[in-house]
Amino acid sequence: MKKVLIIGGGFAGINAAKKLGNKKDVEVTLIDRRNHHLFQPLLYQVAMAGLNPADIAAPIRTLLSDYKNITVYQGSAEKVLPNEKKVVCDIGTYEYDKLILACGARHTYFGHNEWEEFAPGLKTLNQATEIRRRVLSAFETAEASTDIEARKKALTFVIVGGGPTGVELAGAIGEMSRFTLAKDFRNIDARLTRIILIEFAPRILTAFDEDQSARAARDLEKLGVQIWTNSAVTNIDATGVYVGKEKIEAQTILWGAGVAASKLGNTLNVEQDKQGRVIVEEDLTLKNYPDIFVAGDQAHRLGKDGKPLPGMAPVAMQQGRYIASKIVNDIEGKPTPPFKYIDKGKMATIGRSKAIAHSGKLKLNGFPAWVAWLFIHILYLTGFKNRLVVVLQWGWSYFTFKRGSRLIVGKKWRFYGNENNSDN
Amino acid sequence: MKKVLIIGGGFAGINAAKKLGNKKDVEVTLIDRRNHHLFQPLLYQVAMAGLNPADIAAPIRTLLSDYKNITVYQGSAEKVLPNEKKVVCDIGTYEYDKLILACGARHTYFGHNEWEEFAPGLKTLNQATEIRRRVLSAFETAEASTDIEARKKALTFVIVGGGPTGVELAGAIGEMSRFTLAKDFRNIDARLTRIILIEFAPRILTAFDEDQSARAARDLEKLGVQIWTNSAVTNIDATGVYVGKEKIEAQTILWGAGVAASKLGNTLNVEQDKQGRVIVEEDLTLKNYPDIFVAGDQAHRLGKDGKPLPGMAPVAMQQGRYIASKIVNDIEGKPTPPFKYIDKGKMATIGRSKAIAHSGKLKLNGFPAWVAWLFIHILYLTGFKNRLVVVLQWGWSYFTFKRGSRLIVGKKWRFYGNENNSDN
Repeated sequence: MKKVLIIGGGFAGINAAKKLGNKKDVEVTLIDRRNHHLFQPLLYQVAMAGLNPADIAAPIRTLLSDYKNITVYQGSAEKVLPNEKKVVCDIGTYEYDKLILACGARHTYFGHNEWEEFAPGLKTLNQATEIRRRVLSAFETAEASTDIEARKKALTFVIVGGGPTGVELAGAIGEMSRFTLAKDFRNIDARLTRIILIEFAPRILTAFDEDQSARAARDLEKLGVQIWTNSAVTNIDATGVYVGKEKIEAQTILWGAGVAASKLGNTLNVEQDKQGRVIVEEDLTLKNYPDIFVAGDQAHRLGKDGKPLPGMAPVAMQQGRYIASKIVNDIEGKPTPPFKYIDKGKMATIGRSKAIAHSGKLKLNGFPAWVAWLFIHILYLTGFKNRLVVVLQWGWSYFTFKRGSRLIVGKKWRFYGNENNSDN
Repeated sequence: MKKVLIIGGGFAGINAAKKLGNKKDVEVTLIDRRNHHLFQPLLYQVAMAGLNPADIAAPIRTLLSDYKNITVYQGSAEKVLPNEKKVVCDIGTYEYDKLILACGARHTYFGHNEWEEFAPGLKTLNQATEIRRRVLSAFETAEASTDIEARKKALTFVIVGGGPTGVELAGAIGEMSRFTLAKDFRNIDARLTRIILIEFAPRILTAFDEDQSARAARDLEKLGVQIWTNSAVTNIDATGVYVGKEKIEAQTILWGAGVAASKLGNTLNVEQDKQGRVIVEEDLTLKNYPDIFVAGDQAHRLGKDGKPLPGMAPVAMQQGRYIASKIVNDIEGKPTPPFKYIDKGKMATIGRSKAIAHSGKLKLNGFPAWVAWLFIHILYLTGFKNRLVVVLQWGWSYFTFKRGSRLIVGKKWRFYGNENNSDN
């Protein structure tokens, strides 16, 4: 009986586990810090009050409950001991014959961790509900404010980073302020909301070709988003964002810029790239430890174009399934060819009913791209019930321009004097 | 133009506002600490992972957006100045011609506020998701634990207070452990979960007649709940609950015992009862301040039986609507008869498919009572969309025994070393 230990229940971990489920001679343990698998591509919808946390997350335990050879624990992995074939977690130490590390990525503030409290990133459900609280609270603050400067500051939103997450957030805030909130306020005109998307590169969505990137920029601008390219953020504090020497007074600042791999990779003492991703072999194992696999956002593996594979769900899913096959083949004494990523394309969405998509020679923009985006995301959402609820919620939002989840759970957010979200 | 100021967007406040909506010569301002109206009778379902926060809450702003004479602010009222006809809030000071205080109730720990961190109560969405996190985390801790005593402690749940909330929580934990979770764990038998409901009085659900209270106790015991009546809690700490000199080692302790009216009533310098409720006249005004109304859980008004009206949604709703009529009548110079509560009965639910209900001479127990409970609660849930989603979720849970919202948002809860629910 081979002991397979999986750290992380994201796309890579879950796909590996499912493929190993009920396989003979394999005993799987999956450990994750959270009790749920998260459909991260839709996390921005939770942050923007379009979906509920439960619509895009499912307990890992439930997803895997039919596989009798899989045990799930909620715990944090702290250190890998590759020579002893053990992983030290907060809930105990676990042995393995084969180890799959799929711990994903987290935000990085380029050495400015002090910015985090002013500009939260979007990786977990907690962060999504916190962003939702801040965005909705800003409109509440503006409505109640009688001071013009304070109101202006409350209605200024700055999003740092013009990648897919930044674009999604900026587009959704634009749409929410122009359509959803317009008729609900008496003292403010929500359509006057100022939304600034800051990007260091000369254009947004650099993973796409220039024509599509330009199209996305035009669509964002129609939603009232100002795009500042070639702009470096030099400081962030409780009053706003500094771009070079210029200051933007803003109550709400969101972070979609830097990403770094999970710190667990650092405990391995193996080669890592600048983002902390672990460099893996052709079969996704480590050079000196053929029993350790690394997958998903935590792994650095080159694609056909000579660049590292992007931190996207399809890469993680394919890698997870590949590793599971390789483990089964190894047990059965069969060979396994190197991992090859099958690129089905990429997409980014810009608010309601606009997107860009690029697959092989096919480029889609605007509404057709959005329909493709919608179809693919519903198709991939794990679990039938979630899918149905998501379709209902989206249908409802689309036709009514309302947002079903406009809840500030806890108090209204403001930076001073209310950091604590308790009920007292 | 009469300025009506409503503090609190619960059942009383929302019903008063809706009835004053678009009325001539009335300008309404509603202020609430939260941005949402909460359907509190179903809050325990959020705590027990059966429903999502957004299913039972709706933004006050949205609920009232069609009434052009109503302005909504999110803010905390701090002090009433009855002689100056002003209310001081954290977001500013607001004048009124007529004031409606409908701030509801909060938990009280009978002078032991230090118990709160160990035994959270259930009044807000934040508290509901915190209770959910603790309950689900307890099963996770038990699954990962190799020590028998630690596992036993993790699987012990103590609920303090045998009123409707305590009964609902105990029943739901019983049901969840016996049905929902049974097949998802490998190391523990969730059916061995120990659930203790502690009540100071000689029986649970004292608002009901003895026969129905006994029936509810039997139904609870079938779900594995042990009921300790005539039992006084003497201390609560991070390791468990003390009942007299006996100690129950328990990881999860929930509080459903004491209730006290909002503290805002204390700033009025008027007569209050022992629970801090403000004593009101026959027309729900204050004795010396006929322009101030108090309604809902914050008000002390005697019913036909000579006892104060209970802190229930129907009382608050009827009082809210009564006050609105009285204000309109006053403006039009018409008289208004004293407030009279129309008692349609009371009900309490015990897990899935059991309840007790008492209306006039009609007493229902078990499944028929539960169907009545379900029907009435769906009927009263605010807003069509929420209703539809709730019916779907319940239908799904009923037939699959699953719970759609079994998410621990944030980390696993344990008292030491993890009080902080951050993502780092």
